Amino acid sequence: MDETQDSGSFPARLAKDKPVDRPISAATARLYDHWGAQQDRTNPFYTTFHYSPVTGIGRDDRVSVSRRDPSKVLKIGDLYHVWYTRRITSVPPVGMDRFEEADEQIPAVDWDLADICHATSSNGFDWVEQGVAVPRAPQGNYGDRSLSTPDILAWDGKFWLYYQCFTTRWRENDCVSVSAAWADSAWGPWTRVDRPVVMRGGRHEWDGCAIHDPFPLVYKGQIWLYYKGTPVDRPPENLRLAQGVAIADHPAGPFVKSPLNPVTNSGHETMLWPWRGGIAALLSLDGPEKNTVQFAADGLNFVPKAHVTMPPQAPGPFCPDAFADKGDGQGVRWGLAHINPEGGGGDKGCHLIRFDCNLCDAGRPEFQKSNILYHEGTWLQRVLALSPERKARILAQQAIVDRQTVLGP
Amino acid sequence: MDETQDSGSFPARLAKDKPVDRPISAATARLYDHWGAQQDRTNPFYTTFHYSPVTGIGRDDRVSVSRRDPSKVLKIGDLYHVWYTRRITSVPPVGMDRFEEADEQIPAVDWDLADICHATSSNGFDWVEQGVAVPRAPQGNYGDRSLSTPDILAWDGKFWLYYQCFTTRWRENDCVSVSAAWADSAWGPWTRVDRPVVMRGGRHEWDGCAIHDPFPLVYKGQIWLYYKGTPVDRPPENLRLAQGVAIADHPAGPFVKSPLNPVTNSGHETMLWPWRGGIAALLSLDGPEKNTVQFAADGLNFVPKAHVTMPPQAPGPFCPDAFADKGDGQGVRWGLAHINPEGGGGDKGCHLIRFDCNLCDAGRPEFQKSNILYHEGTWLQRVLALSPERKARILAQQAIVDRQTVLGP
Repeated sequence: MDETQDSGSFPARLAKDKPVDRPISAATARLYDHWGAQQDRTNPFYTTFHYSPVTGIGRDDRVSVSRRDPSKVLKIGDLYHVWYTRRITSVPPVGMDRFEEADEQIPAVDWDLADICHATSSNGFDWVEQGVAVPRAPQGNYGDRSLSTPDILAWDGKFWLYYQCFTTRWRENDCVSVSAAWADSAWGPWTRVDRPVVMRGGRHEWDGCAIHDPFPLVYKGQIWLYYKGTPVDRPPENLRLAQGVAIADHPAGPFVKSPLNPVTNSGHETMLWPWRGGIAALLSLDGPEKNTVQFAADGLNFVPKAHVTMPPQAPGPFCPDAFADKGDGQGVRWGLAHINPEGGGGDKGCHLIRFDCNLCDAGRPEFQKSNILYHEGTWLQRVLALSPERKARILAQQAIVDRQTVLGP
Repeated sequence: MDETQDSGSFPARLAKDKPVDRPISAATARLYDHWGAQQDRTNPFYTTFHYSPVTGIGRDDRVSVSRRDPSKVLKIGDLYHVWYTRRITSVPPVGMDRFEEADEQIPAVDWDLADICHATSSNGFDWVEQGVAVPRAPQGNYGDRSLSTPDILAWDGKFWLYYQCFTTRWRENDCVSVSAAWADSAWGPWTRVDRPVVMRGGRHEWDGCAIHDPFPLVYKGQIWLYYKGTPVDRPPENLRLAQGVAIADHPAGPFVKSPLNPVTNSGHETMLWPWRGGIAALLSLDGPEKNTVQFAADGLNFVPKAHVTMPPQAPGPFCPDAFADKGDGQGVRWGLAHINPEGGGGDKGCHLIRFDCNLCDAGRPEFQKSNILYHEGTWLQRVLALSPERKARILAQQAIVDRQTVLGP
């Protein structure tokens, strides 16, 4: 066997502190300066995600039903509670590109013509849909078009649902503010506030269009409502999407936006949770720091702490200390997310699934694997397969653009 | 409609230079300091990947055939050439945990009892397998067990194949050095060097076990052979895997390892290519910087430049200037990769697929999407689904560990 002798190259066993007696590469320096010398294995911010179907609010092939954007999951007594966007229409959405064809029966997008629905479970896998918690307002009133993407706050003995609130016909660009409803019990009845509670920004500001995916936490004695913002116009020189936070002393507002907004440069439906005195966040899908777990000791200045793969879409975490404000946040072990049976752009509505994880260091060391290798159906699914149109174009072009590596016969 | 006025919050239109007249968050500062203010859209290192089945060397359901770890793709005349690991055995591998059951007919792992095989294509999608290029050595000789994970170098009128070279019975821990074979033509015949060309490191060094996935480029007038290294023992305090580089003036060596090794802290089968005077790399699957495109202006000090999703596994790029050493590397538009029909840990052998991409800025602006949403089969495949065992354990534990969010009935 070709045994070789130690020759002074970098040791297998990593020194606790950054070596100063030898040259190291930029990559090794980052291990010590940023990631932790042990790579992912001892990084509390690293986790794998594993998924389970759920009953009651899972796959539903009726035309056209969608359940999506689950709230945080609360545990009250022996029951788990979740709220989510539910649409039941006689036809599927026409899509953002054809929004002008939408009417009072025809949805523009998956979260159009929707209400806020409620479900409960005794084990987090099997759910009972309890029906609509907050319906759209009567025709002609604020919030008559669609209520979507709810999240929940418990504050001062009351429950508050925050949601995107669409009025009148669907418009281009998905522009909307956040409204709310409150109740004395998780079972309702809910009273709509019937006005915007967190307003979208001005026309030329980063959050001038969408204020999506409200995510309230209690932090430093106040209500911190994180949200996804998008500008009205989206030429390349405009920010595409990012996350901001608005802070209030009362659930009905006024909400004051942080002067540091936006506080993330990436992510889509960002999940957040209190952790060791700060706020941790799972960013996915979009932006240069997509698919990272980040941490902000002050809730505002987020730093990437781990790269993850296959994070849940639109996750709603079971986070028992979301409102405790005790500075000892213990993390997230599971929650609900949504998927579409056909993937992005599919005609079918979304449905909910459960995710399990170990964020951060939440007592599940077996959720630490990497090198996860996907099956053939993953690589060749519609959103990843090279389309026939692109293949034809590539075949036509490559005879011209593919230069020879080596000249020869 | 709830129009609001501009109120002085962060503008939609991003200033070219980092704002100095207002507070910004750490995330916004990183956009300017590191990622580029335009997020992924104008980042030359960002790409999506799209996949296509191939014929001739694609899916093969015979028991037990595996084609994996494709080399770079060369274009010579009108033909594309690729080399890869091929195993044809009468039974599937027993697996790393049961390697002691392997014998001269029974493979331990997917790349055991394999030879280096050659295929050609006129369009990169449809391939003709030309047969074994470099077979294992006769029994009792160096390299009699398995040759795997080849890559190709063209140098001074000759072709060189580098590969992992296993001798005698399979051993625990996959320890191996790199050997080589040479030919005057891409069609062979190939002459084996029959000795290690790049040696694994000493027992206590970071590359003391595996020297896997050799990847030669011509750079600064020399042969730069990047490789994946792993230590012999893998307790948590040891580096798990990383990439190093060994440099030579002649393809048969001697290869001198860089004193900066390891030069990455992440990645698995890392693909590299010359780009604007430096070396770019696609790191995937493992480590804190998994799924990033990185760049090293000096070939040694790599820095993450973009986060990507679903990068190809074990990619072999078509990279026409891999050996040109002209300092104007133009990037990678396509190549071959391997997948397993069942995903990681499946019994079936791997097969090859084609990937298309735009690395870096290689004239395919349509490969820039983000927010890619996968289909149901992705989330619930075996490697991502919560296993029945874990579900049972979680059901037993959560009644105890899941605290109430809100006290109440």
